[in-house]
Amino acid sequence: MGMYIGKDRTARRSYGFDEIALVPGTVTINPNEVDTSFNIGNKKYNVPILAAAMDGVVDVDFAIAMGKLGGLAVLNLEGVQTRYDNPEEVLDKIAHATPEEATELVQGLYTKPIQEKLISKRIAQIKKAGVPTVVSAIPQRAEKFGAIAQEAGADIFIVQSTVATVKHISTEYKTLDFKKFCKSMKIPVIIGNCVTYEVALELFKTGPSGLLIGIGPGAACTTRGVLGIGVPQVTATSDCATARDHFYKKTGKYIPIITDGGMNTGGDICKAFACGADAVMVGSAFAKAKEAPGRGFHWGMATPHANLPRGTRIRVGTAGTLDEILFGPARLDDGSQNLMGALQTSMGSLGAKNIKEMHKVDIVIAPSIKTEGKIFQQAQRVGMGK
Amino acid sequence: MGMYIGKDRTARRSYGFDEIALVPGTVTINPNEVDTSFNIGNKKYNVPILAAAMDGVVDVDFAIAMGKLGGLAVLNLEGVQTRYDNPEEVLDKIAHATPEEATELVQGLYTKPIQEKLISKRIAQIKKAGVPTVVSAIPQRAEKFGAIAQEAGADIFIVQSTVATVKHISTEYKTLDFKKFCKSMKIPVIIGNCVTYEVALELFKTGPSGLLIGIGPGAACTTRGVLGIGVPQVTATSDCATARDHFYKKTGKYIPIITDGGMNTGGDICKAFACGADAVMVGSAFAKAKEAPGRGFHWGMATPHANLPRGTRIRVGTAGTLDEILFGPARLDDGSQNLMGALQTSMGSLGAKNIKEMHKVDIVIAPSIKTEGKIFQQAQRVGMGK
Amino acid sequence: MGMYIGKDRTARRSYGFDEIALVPGTVTINPNEVDTSFNIGNKKYNVPILAAAMDGVVDVDFAIAMGKLGGLAVLNLEGVQTRYDNPEEVLDKIAHATPEEATELVQGLYTKPIQEKLISKRIAQIKKAGVPTVVSAIPQRAEKFGAIAQEAGADIFIVQSTVATVKHISTEYKTLDFKKFCKSMKIPVIIGNCVTYEVALELFKTGPSGLLIGIGPGAACTTRGVLGIGVPQVTATSDCATARDHFYKKTGKYIPIITDGGMNTGGDICKAFACGADAVMVGSAFAKAKEAPGRGFHWGMATPHANLPRGTRIRVGTAGTLDEILFGPARLDDGSQNLMGALQTSMGSLGAKNIKEMHKVDIVIAPSIKTEGKIFQQAQRVGMGK
Amino acid sequence: MGMYIGKDRTARRSYGFDEIALVPGTVTINPNEVDTSFNIGNKKYNVPILAAAMDGVVDVDFAIAMGKLGGLAVLNLEGVQTRYDNPEEVLDKIAHATPEEATELVQGLYTKPIQEKLISKRIAQIKKAGVPTVVSAIPQRAEKFGAIAQEAGADIFIVQSTVATVKHISTEYKTLDFKKFCKSMKIPVIIGNCVTYEVALELFKTGPSGLLIGIGPGAACTTRGVLGIGVPQVTATSDCATARDHFYKKTGKYIPIITDGGMNTGGDICKAFACGADAVMVGSAFAKAKEAPGRGFHWGMATPHANLPRGTRIRVGTAGTLDEILFGPARLDDGSQNLMGALQTSMGSLGAKNIKEMHKVDIVIAPSIKTEGKIFQQAQRVGMGK
Repeated sequence: MGMYIGKDRTARRSYGFDEIALVPGTVTINPNEVDTSFNIGNKKYNVPILAAAMDGVVDVDFAIAMGKLGGLAVLNLEGVQTRYDNPEEVLDKIAHATPEEATELVQGLYTKPIQEKLISKRIAQIKKAGVPTVVSAIPQRAEKFGAIAQEAGADIFIVQSTVATVKHISTEYKTLDFKKFCKSMKIPVIIGNCVTYEVALELFKTGPSGLLIGIGPGAACTTRGVLGIGVPQVTATSDCATARDHFYKKTGKYIPIITDGGMNTGGDICKAFACGADAVMVGSAFAKAKEAPGRGFHWGMATPHANLPRGTRIRVGTAGTLDEILFGPARLDDGSQNLMGALQTSMGSLGAKNIKEMHKVDIVIAPSIKTEGKIFQQAQRVGMGK
Repeated sequence: MGMYIGKDRTARRSYGFDEIALVPGTVTINPNEVDTSFNIGNKKYNVPILAAAMDGVVDVDFAIAMGKLGGLAVLNLEGVQTRYDNPEEVLDKIAHATPEEATELVQGLYTKPIQEKLISKRIAQIKKAGVPTVVSAIPQRAEKFGAIAQEAGADIFIVQSTVATVKHISTEYKTLDFKKFCKSMKIPVIIGNCVTYEVALELFKTGPSGLLIGIGPGAACTTRGVLGIGVPQVTATSDCATARDHFYKKTGKYIPIITDGGMNTGGDICKAFACGADAVMVGSAFAKAKEAPGRGFHWGMATPHANLPRGTRIRVGTAGTLDEILFGPARLDDGSQNLMGALQTSMGSLGAKNIKEMHKVDIVIAPSIKTEGKIFQQAQRVGMGK
Repeated sequence: MGMYIGKDRTARRSYGFDEIALVPGTVTINPNEVDTSFNIGNKKYNVPILAAAMDGVVDVDFAIAMGKLGGLAVLNLEGVQTRYDNPEEVLDKIAHATPEEATELVQGLYTKPIQEKLISKRIAQIKKAGVPTVVSAIPQRAEKFGAIAQEAGADIFIVQSTVATVKHISTEYKTLDFKKFCKSMKIPVIIGNCVTYEVALELFKTGPSGLLIGIGPGAACTTRGVLGIGVPQVTATSDCATARDHFYKKTGKYIPIITDGGMNTGGDICKAFACGADAVMVGSAFAKAKEAPGRGFHWGMATPHANLPRGTRIRVGTAGTLDEILFGPARLDDGSQNLMGALQTSMGSLGAKNIKEMHKVDIVIAPSIKTEGKIFQQAQRVGMGK
Repeated sequence: MGMYIGKDRTARRSYGFDEIALVPGTVTINPNEVDTSFNIGNKKYNVPILAAAMDGVVDVDFAIAMGKLGGLAVLNLEGVQTRYDNPEEVLDKIAHATPEEATELVQGLYTKPIQEKLISKRIAQIKKAGVPTVVSAIPQRAEKFGAIAQEAGADIFIVQSTVATVKHISTEYKTLDFKKFCKSMKIPVIIGNCVTYEVALELFKTGPSGLLIGIGPGAACTTRGVLGIGVPQVTATSDCATARDHFYKKTGKYIPIITDGGMNTGGDICKAFACGADAVMVGSAFAKAKEAPGRGFHWGMATPHANLPRGTRIRVGTAGTLDEILFGPARLDDGSQNLMGALQTSMGSLGAKNIKEMHKVDIVIAPSIKTEGKIFQQAQRVGMGK
């Protein structure tokens, strides 16, 4: 599968969401009659679109709102929620900073130490609403925070770093033994992020209940821009789906993969499922919710998430309620609203009655030059400028 | 024909109009001496460019104007024309709404129920002018509206949904049996939309007089953006043309295919024919006609058309009379005017004396990076900004 | 060499200048010591860059200036120069029209009939200056104007149409027999335009002294946009160069090919030679000369040239004297100045001591995404906006 | 490895940094524990990122600052530093010129003759600070300036021309014999630039201590735009790395290659190492340093560097101290700061414990269409425009 990039050097062609499209088959299904559910551990969830562990996306109230709608929102145990008794104050400051102040302010706010008692408190707050409680930490803090989270009643624990591998070499600090950790936890553990068949297979063997897929997925995401590292999500998801299927064939254990990052529209989400994802994790789309703690802003910092590694605050605006973003009705036609409706309609049009059938729909490589889009948008701009 | 997009997953490369160009052969023909006609049922039409069933494009007057010029315009039986006694009022409202109000206004206007008596009335109005009357409805309403339309004297009936298949699964509602429907109708029935060889072949077997080709053709068309679904038109048209030819070889019945959507210029239209289309269906180009009911605007809603599924109104402007758009003279050099002149000149330059010969011209894959275009347009902008 | 664009349809991948780059070999040469000459008939010309037959580029004075610098400029026998006794007046009008008036004005000005006596007069004027006189007409007028031109002392006659073939079918008018025509003329005849091996070979057999290569070369050139027709120049030039070489091998006659259109920079010109061109024909670059009759504007109309088929006037500005454009020094770094210097330096860096060696330099397909360029230009803009 | 670009003409596909991405393997390493060093001659340098020989980048003070941070900065022996007793004055003039004046001013300033005594003086000034002294000249001046530089105590001498070959043909001037020259010098000699396996191999045989890789690397760099010449850096670096490895295998001499040009971000630098570079040479990134003599501007002239051959001044701005650019902390997330941190983190994430292991990391060809980036940047712009 390699192509020559040098006399003696080959590289495999990888693909991103912009480059593919899904092809209808010979059967279509009423969108209301498709099944979008997936499982983590032995629990079934009907909304396979998770909200990412970012401070502009998920806080206690957002997690509760998401849970009540049938979804899962991940609370970052290393963000403002566990560093500040009153995170509202901090979030307000970030939202009201001038663009010039924002980056430095954000960087400064995250130097405040994490208070362990706040970990328990936040989990209890979500728990109290009777919805699934999902929290995350980086590998270095997984053992300590995992124990606290479990104790506090969390339902799922996520260990997330930009690049997860079974073997991490360091003489400066102790590295996390994923196998031991998964075994020690009584609640399901999700590990991430990875992008290759080999690493996914190794990680599956450590006993997680799910894997996050995605490293530097966007061509201009900072991981790719700053480190040169990344695999576009179509290829990453397909490869890790193959690892999942091979692992299942060998062990009988079906461990879901969750595509994380690189999806900008409902169409991209549909494509992720077609590539083999059991669920997806999304940030920006949810940062636009009225319920999002970011107040129309989005940033990264205390989280290992690849898109925003250095505290840059970006304005995403507020597009509608979480309910509207998930279930519509869509008032924009850019694919950022009614994500579940889009998924169901796509599955119906493709004749996929559940996510496993969605894994098998026909894919074409389609040109990504957005000529028509440009013309369309231009027309819109003209219309709006009226 | 597959390429690996994942370790275990292949996808076929598909092509769009921007990626190809037509190559002159060893013979050229005087453009005035080429034959552009095609047949639906046993009627011959000289203008193989149909106007799409959209409320900003076709109303009674437009259909009459188009018919008098030798063309076919499709009246949407589920739009403002059949919901309102006085559609002019409604169209005026849409055209005069501010951009902020437009989407919601459009969405609201289409909740008004369809009046069946208006179906008969509109058809009678077109019919009276002595031009071909073509109307369309979605599959769920095809049986009822088809009967009314036929009774009222319609010449051609189109059953159009975003994704048409012979088998549609639903327990909530009764699905249309295309074979039974086509048999029950005395006037030609056109079915759409489809994009693959397999589905085209299955649909040909149900007995239509034509097939509409095109699902999510543009890289940024909403079907592709929202649902992830789409096949670029070069590949879709070529594949369905092969199905048509195979069906013809087997049954002796030549059923024309009509490429619908994704064409922005006269050049794209010429390419559609080169890919195997017998006719094309176009929206925006006609929305720019002085005669178009949209008054310089274009939107989708009550129609299953893929480009504008959610009521967004876009301004297309008014470029000239329908006569000028079809037959010139062109006053713009962007390929949006004198579409028939462009087709005839292209056929002449390519040495194709009729549409069937046009199906066989040589095609090259040509880079779509529009460097020169950009420079050209930039120069134009500079010139215009003088 | 075909790729599948449909189930049953293949297309060959063709290439444009943006997609290739030239690779230095193991030898370099002092640029001052390379030979750039080419031959038409049995005359040798040192400047292998011809000025195109466009009214904004070539008039009598420009042709004289070009000739004195060692180059060839083609006077269009169907433009303002032969329609108006005082073309200066007309050119002034075009240059001073508002953008709104320009297109219609240009279209109107070219309806004035051609005066045959002006053909002889213009040729005599150029002739008098002792420089080579090159004129052009479309095939329909070639016999009449060819005779007049020859009589008046023209040195080279060009028969140019957008798409030239040996066999043109028409019942409405008499078509030109190239073979008979070439034989009847005592001065060298150049024929164009063509883009394929087959047509080039057929045209070579009719006895021309040169062939113009280029139909719809740019992805957004109007021939490709309006008619869908075009072959990128790398492939067109390479293919016709092969036809030239095969014809030479068989007959011993080496007939030069002249790549016409699609070159925006000195780099593109160098690439045309590397692809096999013996000379190139350029419009815009010369329209920017102080000596150009367009006064900083450029348009098409009475000429069959593909780039500007409908009279749109574009502003190109004035970049320097013709001497500077051909021989430098360059004051811009965009490759639009010092075209001969660029060619000589390129040949030196590539180790090509003459044009025939230039035909054999190593070519790579190189990505045309202009990231760096954009950044560079952005930086420049910032710098200029200071 | 060739693809047909014409009937009879093949070209190899080459790749640029934008088109590839690096893939994490099964091991990761603590970034603090990777080794980034490389050797020139028998000296080891920890910072494998050299500052290019450009007047806006390197002067005596910059070279000293760079040396103290463990890096190498190349002083151009043909720039303002050796033409003017007081270069500060000249640099001030360039920085304060209006954009209109800048190009002509720069062109004029470089016509002043080089003073040989200033060569010795500048070298002595750097030398005095106890840091490595690296200087450069073009081949025509290498013998004379090389002797002076060596005498004055320079540590490394670079002979740089746009296109270096072992065989240069000229009857007008004497050409440099690289073999003789390398032998004559007691200090390490670095030669450049080249891009192919064949030329690299020939140059290795002449006895240099390093090779500069890079000719017209960017799609829109002026060498490619003006001369049509260039090879994208992924392919150029890979090919020359293979030449280095083959030469090493045969002779036991490991001669480092230094990728020069075409890197815009930390990610590009990481990719250069993955392609086989032992070190990289960078201009713009260092021109942005507070210590850079260009005062926020960047230009080319007396240097053979390909990016800025004609004296155009571009504004790059000032982004931070040299220390910040090399070692962070990064205050921008565009990959232009903390270049060494980026390299170390990339190596850690890829499991490469030294540069030689970095040469073997897995590469994928990844789409370069920057959709996400555009959206990201757009969001940022919106946020900044607040």
